[in-house]
Amino acid sequence: MVSQVYQGRLGRCVTLMKAAGIDALLLTRPSNMFYLTGDGRLCSYAMITKEGKVALGVPQTDVEDVKALARFDHIAGFEDEVGMIHSIAHHFARFDIDAGVVGLEFTFLTQSMMSMVTHPHAKPKAVVVKDATPILSGLRIVKEPGEIDRIKAAAGVAATGMAAAVKAVRPGITESQIAAEAEYAMRNAGAEEFWRTYVSSGPRTNIAHGLPTNRKLQPGDLVMIDIHPIVNGYSADICRTVCTGKPTPGQQTAYDLFLKAQQTTIGKVRAGAVIGDLEQTLQKALREAGHGEHIFGPPIHGVGIDFEESPLPPGHAFFHGEAAPPPLEANVVIAVGNCGLYTGSWGVRVEDTVVVGPEGPTALTDYPRHL
Amino acid sequence: MVSQVYQGRLGRCVTLMKAAGIDALLLTRPSNMFYLTGDGRLCSYAMITKEGKVALGVPQTDVEDVKALARFDHIAGFEDEVGMIHSIAHHFARFDIDAGVVGLEFTFLTQSMMSMVTHPHAKPKAVVVKDATPILSGLRIVKEPGEIDRIKAAAGVAATGMAAAVKAVRPGITESQIAAEAEYAMRNAGAEEFWRTYVSSGPRTNIAHGLPTNRKLQPGDLVMIDIHPIVNGYSADICRTVCTGKPTPGQQTAYDLFLKAQQTTIGKVRAGAVIGDLEQTLQKALREAGHGEHIFGPPIHGVGIDFEESPLPPGHAFFHGEAAPPPLEANVVIAVGNCGLYTGSWGVRVEDTVVVGPEGPTALTDYPRHL
Repeated sequence: MVSQVYQGRLGRCVTLMKAAGIDALLLTRPSNMFYLTGDGRLCSYAMITKEGKVALGVPQTDVEDVKALARFDHIAGFEDEVGMIHSIAHHFARFDIDAGVVGLEFTFLTQSMMSMVTHPHAKPKAVVVKDATPILSGLRIVKEPGEIDRIKAAAGVAATGMAAAVKAVRPGITESQIAAEAEYAMRNAGAEEFWRTYVSSGPRTNIAHGLPTNRKLQPGDLVMIDIHPIVNGYSADICRTVCTGKPTPGQQTAYDLFLKAQQTTIGKVRAGAVIGDLEQTLQKALREAGHGEHIFGPPIHGVGIDFEESPLPPGHAFFHGEAAPPPLEANVVIAVGNCGLYTGSWGVRVEDTVVVGPEGPTALTDYPRHL
Repeated sequence: MVSQVYQGRLGRCVTLMKAAGIDALLLTRPSNMFYLTGDGRLCSYAMITKEGKVALGVPQTDVEDVKALARFDHIAGFEDEVGMIHSIAHHFARFDIDAGVVGLEFTFLTQSMMSMVTHPHAKPKAVVVKDATPILSGLRIVKEPGEIDRIKAAAGVAATGMAAAVKAVRPGITESQIAAEAEYAMRNAGAEEFWRTYVSSGPRTNIAHGLPTNRKLQPGDLVMIDIHPIVNGYSADICRTVCTGKPTPGQQTAYDLFLKAQQTTIGKVRAGAVIGDLEQTLQKALREAGHGEHIFGPPIHGVGIDFEESPLPPGHAFFHGEAAPPPLEANVVIAVGNCGLYTGSWGVRVEDTVVVGPEGPTALTDYPRHL
């Protein structure tokens, strides 16, 4: 399946590779392989040369399945790890690469995976390794119209999931059961998969990564729900905070403050805006209301095939092996509100996925926002 | 919360560290932190010294939550990545570690995470790095009675999830919707979380990692369902293959063959058995029936906090940074049947979680086995 979409992406990839002095990419991150070839799966690899040739290696069981999904010039099936290593060596040889620079995904490869793909039986000795993360992030940051359509579809499914979760909120139900309602609704609304669901309640709304537990909701608890369906390979990201009963005046004030800060920030999203400035807009509103000690987490990140991808906020990006993001361009998709306001006893967070437009934002997630 | 369980694990950890010449561990893998301290979460770390001291670093939002769950001597909250780096440096200084060897998880840390935890502002220059994977695997391989109880509880939930999935199998339903039924039932039966659900159907049963898609089941399709609930932090692993209608004679023969091979292999599980020999038992039965070209995947792996953990099969282990496993001891928990028989058009797989006993196995997953 050689479509114009993949040829176009490959052409842009080759341009970025040449500018970075990279002779070949050796990719194992499913999202990157999916973007460039149409298929990304576990325990596989894609080798892409600066001439625009694509070789794939997959488990031998998967060869026919991949043929129907991916754009490639050569494909090899392997039986196990030793076979994978030999098939990498085979593709280096086929492409006459015995020296030069190979780009690897430093933000994805563990030390042991790195040892495997650079094993002396895989990589020619004279081929040196360089981080290819900025190339892939640069490639994927501005979305094509077809990609935005898929993210919109995911956002629609996210609304269905959020509605099911919020409907289930009542004293006595567990966080895990609320997650179950969201996930069940998302799969039945068309999600083939989802990223990890976060549901936290009561004092647990104060923690940074509220994965669901069997804690039972108590009357008056705040409940934070963060979901990320995948539809046709693309994600959306939405978070809402609700209350099992009547929120306290303090909770309502904090929620209103956070929501206003988030919406004000979204209002400033447009081509040319700088993520660091948008972060400041959100954080300043919270600081000026006396919550300077209650902010945690980078407020903005990109959304696409991965639910957290480039652009990442400047501070965050550096430590995740990314370059600081350039000013926003039209058709970048971001989630705004990923940080929260955490008072110590409870927290509030509202997060939405929006498309950057030339003149302003288009919100894709529009589930109602109230406690 | 300093309980005898964690003191005992810490004591064994210190013994293994000393034998490996490691002065401190710097752990970031949630399962390893959970085993040694009682809590493991994202974006956190545990430093453990050879004197048995434990320091934790968590997002500042999480400090109170962690205090209620984890055993530790020192705890630090941080605001962001820079704060995390400084808090690692702080704990190195507090423990007077300015030289020696720090153990890191090479099978978990990406290149960029490695750069972060070994940043010059985190790790003293004279402290050198060594892979600590074998220490953690060695620690966790034999399960305590309390751990086996939790794995049993997870196995019970797995049976509930499998029953719900199998009940949903009918022409027209999607793979994703079958996954939804399994996951919904598992959360409602007491799972706080689950590892990724695999559901594949028809020709997709021939692929190695059948994550669910929106493919609709056709009459006569085989359906492969592989689920892994988490209950109180512990996992179980079960796979069943069923048919939407009447299987063909070829499918029935292949299924019966695989099931017999799997059950024969389980019958040989006992203390002193060698995983490589058990692998051979399973593979030989398939090879002798003419399916030598139709086998893929390592047939056996450990089950515990992670649903795939030590012991790993010898070939697999090496490339995942693990040592080849020693002969099985009593109270090791393994899943048998993780490989499949893949004919090219479809595949079959049956997998069960069993406890190694002195005289033989105890199966924890007992959902009926038939097409």
